[in-house]
Amino acid sequence: MLSQNIIKELTNIVGKDNNILTSKEDLICYSYDATNQKFLPDAVVFPKDAQEISLILKMANFEGFPVVPRGAGSGFSGGSLPVNGGVVISLERMNKILKIDADNLTAVVEPGIVTGDLQAEVEKLGLFYPPDPTSLKFSTIGGNVAENAGGPRAVKYGVTRDYVLGLEVVLPTGEIINTGTETMKGVVGYDLTKLMVGSEGTLGIVTKIILKLIPLPEAVKTMLAVFVDMRDAAETVSKIICSRIIPSTLEFIDRNCIKCVEDYLQIGLPLNVSIRGLPKDADAILLIEVDGDKDLIEKESATIQRICLDNGAKEFRLAKDKKEVKELWKARRAISPSLKKLNPDKINEDIVVPRNKIPDAITGVQDIAKKYELTIANFGHAGDGNIHVNIMIDKSNKDELARAEKAVKEIFKLTIELGGTISGEHGIGISKMPYISMELSPAAIDAMKKIKNVLDPKGILNPGKIFYTERHNEADQGATKARSEAYV
Amino acid sequence: MLSQNIIKELTNIVGKDNNILTSKEDLICYSYDATNQKFLPDAVVFPKDAQEISLILKMANFEGFPVVPRGAGSGFSGGSLPVNGGVVISLERMNKILKIDADNLTAVVEPGIVTGDLQAEVEKLGLFYPPDPTSLKFSTIGGNVAENAGGPRAVKYGVTRDYVLGLEVVLPTGEIINTGTETMKGVVGYDLTKLMVGSEGTLGIVTKIILKLIPLPEAVKTMLAVFVDMRDAAETVSKIICSRIIPSTLEFIDRNCIKCVEDYLQIGLPLNVSIRGLPKDADAILLIEVDGDKDLIEKESATIQRICLDNGAKEFRLAKDKKEVKELWKARRAISPSLKKLNPDKINEDIVVPRNKIPDAITGVQDIAKKYELTIANFGHAGDGNIHVNIMIDKSNKDELARAEKAVKEIFKLTIELGGTISGEHGIGISKMPYISMELSPAAIDAMKKIKNVLDPKGILNPGKIFYTERHNEADQGATKARSEAYV
Repeated sequence: MLSQNIIKELTNIVGKDNNILTSKEDLICYSYDATNQKFLPDAVVFPKDAQEISLILKMANFEGFPVVPRGAGSGFSGGSLPVNGGVVISLERMNKILKIDADNLTAVVEPGIVTGDLQAEVEKLGLFYPPDPTSLKFSTIGGNVAENAGGPRAVKYGVTRDYVLGLEVVLPTGEIINTGTETMKGVVGYDLTKLMVGSEGTLGIVTKIILKLIPLPEAVKTMLAVFVDMRDAAETVSKIICSRIIPSTLEFIDRNCIKCVEDYLQIGLPLNVSIRGLPKDADAILLIEVDGDKDLIEKESATIQRICLDNGAKEFRLAKDKKEVKELWKARRAISPSLKKLNPDKINEDIVVPRNKIPDAITGVQDIAKKYELTIANFGHAGDGNIHVNIMIDKSNKDELARAEKAVKEIFKLTIELGGTISGEHGIGISKMPYISMELSPAAIDAMKKIKNVLDPKGILNPGKIFYTERHNEADQGATKARSEAYV
Repeated sequence: MLSQNIIKELTNIVGKDNNILTSKEDLICYSYDATNQKFLPDAVVFPKDAQEISLILKMANFEGFPVVPRGAGSGFSGGSLPVNGGVVISLERMNKILKIDADNLTAVVEPGIVTGDLQAEVEKLGLFYPPDPTSLKFSTIGGNVAENAGGPRAVKYGVTRDYVLGLEVVLPTGEIINTGTETMKGVVGYDLTKLMVGSEGTLGIVTKIILKLIPLPEAVKTMLAVFVDMRDAAETVSKIICSRIIPSTLEFIDRNCIKCVEDYLQIGLPLNVSIRGLPKDADAILLIEVDGDKDLIEKESATIQRICLDNGAKEFRLAKDKKEVKELWKARRAISPSLKKLNPDKINEDIVVPRNKIPDAITGVQDIAKKYELTIANFGHAGDGNIHVNIMIDKSNKDELARAEKAVKEIFKLTIELGGTISGEHGIGISKMPYISMELSPAAIDAMKKIKNVLDPKGILNPGKIFYTERHNEADQGATKARSEAYV
């Protein structure tokens, strides 16, 4: 609980006009994220700039209360949850595009701008900001930076990290620093920019972001290929890339997802463009896009068609117009709602394996599903080996929940054995904290903790995230509690 | 000086057979880099793996001697110089390619492999490792990682940092850790990989590198355009990129460089392909390459030709065959030797400005040259605003040297005013250490030092580099000494 004095001081910093919330009803709105877990903060503030955030952090160090930065609260790992209460710093008010520089292909933005809104703005100028987390219509650039968000286009264009040239950051102790440059190159001192990207709001609060842009591709072609053997689909992915084509999207949908989506979309879609009427034995779908020069993608899509058909695709569809593009994406877009029909609750994991290990990963996950009598549906970004593993459960069934927890651990074990990683784009936050030592050695975790502790000696910034720390006992308890409630 | 006991212990670790050097004649070979400064180490060792390096670092912490990692010693900022003596760890023996994975487009290599050799190997398999520092025929991947090396192709393909997926690193205290992943995505914990890249061997010794590869472009086209007004050349660069073409090379050569190169190449080259016969008033040359799909680059080079001629190019040449490609590159390649003809010594700076500020930077540098009565020749990577500023002096002329030092500081000031950075790809090392605070704030430097100190509490790993530290007084003295001798 924060004292009245602290609340008064916070109000002095951010100003009265709805820039601080303390009533329970208001706080509830800032207590959760996409993990569906809830932790009530003691206050929510809406600062307007780095200076105000600096003052809040200095006060937090002095008074010893936790501070948790928050974008849109759409994260999948609990990065923005105030697990130990304290002050949530919402970046909502800091949502301006400060500069779009078409000559130098850069933009300077505040963290609170919604990623999709920024994309729309730069595209008006013929420019392109490629990272496209599925949440892009509501998630913010600040949140994307904190979690190093990816998305379907990462296979060709990389992730958020690859577009962050520099930052303005308020360090946990309140100092405001600038990292990186507005230029494409720069090697002056340590790369604090990339250290901040993906640090899940634990090393600093980002208040300004310098982004790299690229020219907007001239055109896009969308294709869909249906395979009766998932291994053929996976092989096709490798063969496309070996043919020197890097598609801008290379999405993969497994049998269980196809089944769900088919059931879900069973209503009135024209046969020729919906995914209805798929071969009954469809084992995998690839949704493929190429973008760039008009003539080139014409040629590339022809090559992709040939590769798909040569490698066992039972069906291949190429969208002829925008309407057909939308139809082809329908299957991919329908996955989330259709999975919900299958079972009320979903444990959504985010593993990555080397691209050619996808069949082993899917087969392994299917074996684990069988062993624990669970329904697991997989889809994801086949181009970069990033698979979203969805364990469909009913959380009120405690036995099923327990089996699911065991399955998660086995899936992570399998992933690491295949040379992969337990999180491709969602981060660790609180939901993967118990598993981080499956992937990282004690010495690596220790090095990270040392960096955390030296930059945040009082442990006030977003405590209880990523790893358990001896120094932040209070935070740990919150995190443990969080974990114990994770799927409840 | 190292005690005989330490030498004996080191020998026990690395083994006798020429894996340790201690005689003065041998040490001299490891005392310098491309800055032409010399600092004699006390011993040079050639470990074969991370375990041996770990033992050496543990001993260094216990005994308190400096350890300096070294690749090929081709750095331009002194990163590999043993400014306080101690043990040089040469990574020469660790030069193997451990894996090239054509399916997943990755390679795992040891740090000592020469970058050009690695490139040749992967190209045999139709793969591509794009970063191309001019030193690639002798510099090593480990050195490239330590300095985050760039090169002409960075405009399209990015720098070393963009290709490092993961590392095996021996931390200053001797722990061996793995960072990152073999997959394209990964967000588990802090990004220690990118923190290590560009840390100039001060945060750890890299012993294994997981690199991202891409498919080898099908073809390349090389062009050269001559401008009588440098501003037209700069504008052309922006216009090419606005036309959605990102050339794989976009090199810029200024008037002084052209003059030097013309004088240097004055002997017997056929007029039509050499750069002899350039317009007398040539103010800038652009050397442009596009790569990728054969048909696409045909189209792109036609567009580039049109843009060049529309924007004041007095001459435009497109190489018809490999021989002509070589001829067009001749001017660019002749810069370094021809500059040496101009004056015996060169202060080689490495600034970056936003792409469209290149004319302001060049004009500003020319003004500074006039003010201090110096000859300054500029060339560089126009696509990413990276200009190599070459102040041509005779170091025996103390007055000229003093003027040059003043000019350097003014050039850095101008660079920062234009929104740029004082080092694009050479690093800070010792040669730019006195200037780092022109670009970084005290709080940013403090954050970096905190990270350095917490990972290297005894200050034994590559001390006296990047920034002055209160805790490493001995190192500072070395660095100051180094600086004072920098251009001598």
